Amino acid sequence: METFSFEELFHLLDQNKLKELRAELMEMNVVDIAEFIDELEGKRIALVFRILPKDLSAGVFAYLDSDDQAKIVQSLTDAELGYLVEELYVDDAVDFLEEVPATVVKRVLANASPETRSAINTLLKFPPNSAGSVMTIEMVELHDRETVDQAIATIRSTGLDKETIYTCYVIDDERHLIGVVPLRQLILADPQTKVSELMQDDPIHVNTLEDQEVVADTAKKYDLLSVPVTDNEGRLVGIITIDDIVDIIEDENTEDFEKMALLQPSEHEYLDTGVFTLAKNRIVWLLILMVSATFTGKIIESFEGMLAAIAGLTACIPMLMDTGGNAGNQASTLIIRGLALGDITPKDYFKVLFKELRVSLLCGVTLAAANFLRMLIIGGSGGTPVFMVVCGAMLCAVVVAKCIGCTLPIVAKIVHLDPALMAGPMITTIVDAVTLAIYLSLAKAFLLK
Amino acid sequence: METFSFEELFHLLDQNKLKELRAELMEMNVVDIAEFIDELEGKRIALVFRILPKDLSAGVFAYLDSDDQAKIVQSLTDAELGYLVEELYVDDAVDFLEEVPATVVKRVLANASPETRSAINTLLKFPPNSAGSVMTIEMVELHDRETVDQAIATIRSTGLDKETIYTCYVIDDERHLIGVVPLRQLILADPQTKVSELMQDDPIHVNTLEDQEVVADTAKKYDLLSVPVTDNEGRLVGIITIDDIVDIIEDENTEDFEKMALLQPSEHEYLDTGVFTLAKNRIVWLLILMVSATFTGKIIESFEGMLAAIAGLTACIPMLMDTGGNAGNQASTLIIRGLALGDITPKDYFKVLFKELRVSLLCGVTLAAANFLRMLIIGGSGGTPVFMVVCGAMLCAVVVAKCIGCTLPIVAKIVHLDPALMAGPMITTIVDAVTLAIYLSLAKAFLLK
Repeated sequence: METFSFEELFHLLDQNKLKELRAELMEMNVVDIAEFIDELEGKRIALVFRILPKDLSAGVFAYLDSDDQAKIVQSLTDAELGYLVEELYVDDAVDFLEEVPATVVKRVLANASPETRSAINTLLKFPPNSAGSVMTIEMVELHDRETVDQAIATIRSTGLDKETIYTCYVIDDERHLIGVVPLRQLILADPQTKVSELMQDDPIHVNTLEDQEVVADTAKKYDLLSVPVTDNEGRLVGIITIDDIVDIIEDENTEDFEKMALLQPSEHEYLDTGVFTLAKNRIVWLLILMVSATFTGKIIESFEGMLAAIAGLTACIPMLMDTGGNAGNQASTLIIRGLALGDITPKDYFKVLFKELRVSLLCGVTLAAANFLRMLIIGGSGGTPVFMVVCGAMLCAVVVAKCIGCTLPIVAKIVHLDPALMAGPMITTIVDAVTLAIYLSLAKAFLLK
Repeated sequence: METFSFEELFHLLDQNKLKELRAELMEMNVVDIAEFIDELEGKRIALVFRILPKDLSAGVFAYLDSDDQAKIVQSLTDAELGYLVEELYVDDAVDFLEEVPATVVKRVLANASPETRSAINTLLKFPPNSAGSVMTIEMVELHDRETVDQAIATIRSTGLDKETIYTCYVIDDERHLIGVVPLRQLILADPQTKVSELMQDDPIHVNTLEDQEVVADTAKKYDLLSVPVTDNEGRLVGIITIDDIVDIIEDENTEDFEKMALLQPSEHEYLDTGVFTLAKNRIVWLLILMVSATFTGKIIESFEGMLAAIAGLTACIPMLMDTGGNAGNQASTLIIRGLALGDITPKDYFKVLFKELRVSLLCGVTLAAANFLRMLIIGGSGGTPVFMVVCGAMLCAVVVAKCIGCTLPIVAKIVHLDPALMAGPMITTIVDAVTLAIYLSLAKAFLLK
């Protein structure tokens, strides 16, 4: 990938050479122009946006940060704003309106044409993250009785306004979705063929209220360039295109990363999120887990006498806890990811558990043996009996941790909780208590006279 | 998304009603047919594959598990195998050949046409995960002197063999990539227009040796349906299509999840990976982290007398360690993800650190206060002085943990290590040692007479 240096552009801007700047910008990709504008501050944002040729401006606008979009809207006249709204794809307009203050929304809608306003309002009403909220209504619709020739004429006459023309959807007179034809097939077919002969019946589709994650999974599974969206009566109401699907995939992955660290998912990029929001997103789970650690405290308290009496026991607690937590975390990560990608389903549970049992025995024995060697070499305040108890506890901890780590995500899936919550921190808290209980019980059984 | 039930298909197969089964399969999507075949065992795999109509078989084959692909290849005659190889897209053929035993590869190549064989061999030679290894060579090439009419004729005559015809690449007589035209523009343009007038110059492209992650980032950034691949002389050698890019995105995310749990990335799905490989992928980091825990052990050992003397001190160790680890893990996860998505770059470090300082003070004070309350209510073997030391240590631990958590991924990025390694387990191990040192030093300073 080429990374752009905006030095020359900044230079032209500093010298107020706007004509040269405009010429340079016209040579660039809209994505790069947006990136350049995002690096500007204050009045320069609107200044540079306004020197763009009209046919580029909507494209650039769609890729800007929402802060910059709001600033630009404030600087536009009503006529300019009206033009911009009409040029934007409806789904891009909705994305932008969802992020800006209500006053901006009002002004934008006031300057849109009645059709655009009603389309935007419809999309704004769908629940967040539903298929309806991310779809666009700009798609190519064909009728089954048309010939290929007529279909291509339809596409030629309306294609400019459509977000994609590469997959055409076939509807009947009541707008029911009855088929799909890739443009590729239209181009390669005989001009007199009927669309109904070419189309694939009963196309894959999603409901407007379906979660966007399902949309992404559908597109991934069937390698689709766009997913059609239908209402409860099976009527075609919109499509979701692959560029938005790629964004959904990344959003869903980000959400999983955040959940696995027990963060409340955030809608904004890190640098754009306020300190209070960041703290609020983190504190709930930190508090819950801290309070849960009361159990580990109670376990230690009940063995306090023994820990004070036998040298070297306390020193090994962090190592056992950490190793148990890490072992459990590895298992749970693999299972959570497997569940998310559909490679693992709850019915595989016993296969998974049996696998983890064997893996954990292999890992546990290796770690216990390595640890025994380490203790013999480095020494420590305990003697061989303490070393043996520590290594026994290590083996048990790894086995128990891996079994808990593979079980909890699957249990979560079965009871319709998000498996991603059963990751590192949650597993660690549970495994720590179990590890400590095993370790201290072993010590009591074998070391206390 | 509709989930398929294969009950009826199994029923037909059990009754050996192959004609009816064939009719049912012909109504289905190739992806669903492949899913059905993947659920079969033994001889039935090849049996069902062989009743498929010829025009579906290559499509279905590309979506099968590699185990099933290998089984099917063994059952095919040389002529059938030759047909299959020619029908497969070259990148699908390469994906399959990379997974099967060398004997199968030999037989497949022996039955391919000389052109296909040479194309496959070329792709097989590129380093794993390079653009060259994932590209396909089936793309639409136009010349700049052609008119739209001629271009569409070229596409019509060669389009069937091309993996995508939606983005056409323009080359000069030395095959240098000089432009790009979306099919959309060709369809909408006047038939007599020259391709050179429509094409966008200097298209975005990647080198054959570029990492696939860069390919995915490029496609995401510019919303491309395919990314052209050029050699060192700028000649067009292949393209990477969006369906493969989506797979790359998911692979890269899986790799990040695995690295963040300190697992060696695995090339295969969990259920297809052997116990020894799974254990091997986990043991290295478990060993390293276990040995690193020697430090925490040494810290505790050096305070052993104090811990034995003051009741309640030891009991709080797990809670402090866990909370520190969790706090650090939250920060590092956000930063790692931000770095991966390009939202955060190393030059943002001081902004990030200042943000984390403020967030950690907010979280730390809240947690310390909550913990003080908790200790007052639940009690514990220590008294108020112990409680105060624990809460002071809690505040310090959270602040230090968040600062370490946001610093290490950025440092890793700067020294060209993978930031994903600086996640949960690694951060926990480091934060644990620091937390313990702070806690026990505070206790020594304020509680030891």
